[in-house]
Amino acid sequence: MDSAVWASPKPELPCAACRTLHRKCSRDCTLALYFPAGEPEKFASVHKVFGASNVIKMLQMVDQEKREDAVKSMVYEANERLRDPVHGCTNAISYLQKCIQDLQLQLKRTREQLQEIQEHSNHLLTVLMDVPYQNPVYQL
Amino acid sequence: MDSAVWASPKPELPCAACRTLHRKCSRDCTLALYFPAGEPEKFASVHKVFGASNVIKMLQMVDQEKREDAVKSMVYEANERLRDPVHGCTNAISYLQKCIQDLQLQLKRTREQLQEIQEHSNHLLTVLMDVPYQNPVYQL
Repeated sequence: MDSAVWASPKPELPCAACRTLHRKCSRDCTLALYFPAGEPEKFASVHKVFGASNVIKMLQMVDQEKREDAVKSMVYEANERLRDPVHGCTNAISYLQKCIQDLQLQLKRTREQLQEIQEHSNHLLTVLMDVPYQNPVYQL
Repeated sequence: MDSAVWASPKPELPCAACRTLHRKCSRDCTLALYFPAGEPEKFASVHKVFGASNVIKMLQMVDQEKREDAVKSMVYEANERLRDPVHGCTNAISYLQKCIQDLQLQLKRTREQLQEIQEHSNHLLTVLMDVPYQNPVYQL
């Protein structure tokens, strides 16, 4: 065997998307940036839920600098859908809405308590304001 | 024209999914229940974002009685993704998380106020507890 073959660099692995789609991964592959070979589960999720062509179309709708965020949100949504095929990530939304309702209720009750104790404190202060007239200093 | 033609019932419209996919809509079409002819925008959204075959696959993963909820959540997610291709429905999640942080902060501050006014009120009460000894009734 030619020694040049031994000296040639190890070919780079195809990105996770190209590997899944059984296609050649070129150096300018637009998916390789977001779906590296070392994280195959990321592409597997979005592929199952959105389909490869929709992922590519959605990325093309987005400016280059926002594509990483778009991929992150797609991976999150896809994982949520696979975890809960009925509700997907609306499950998280319902949970957060419930937390907000609980917090609003706690805040309302705490404000009511504050109002009550404020009124009680004002009352005590009014009573105390009357007291100096009974103070021995004044009675002298 | 044969009068029987005039007397025959008007054929039912194909469901929105079959119409979009240019296929015959049979009486037992599983998509017709969730994507009626009168609401074409529902299928259009999920078709654009998930693809028809993924929608069908995801519905097949779900029990019959939960499919309506699954369709609702898919339509919601698809509409959010079309409205905001970068964040999709994670936008709503971020917004709700922000609301929770704000409410937690308000609750913390209100509890601190409550604690302060409670201490103030206790102090006033302590002062008042000492007052009766100066009361004319007791001085008699």
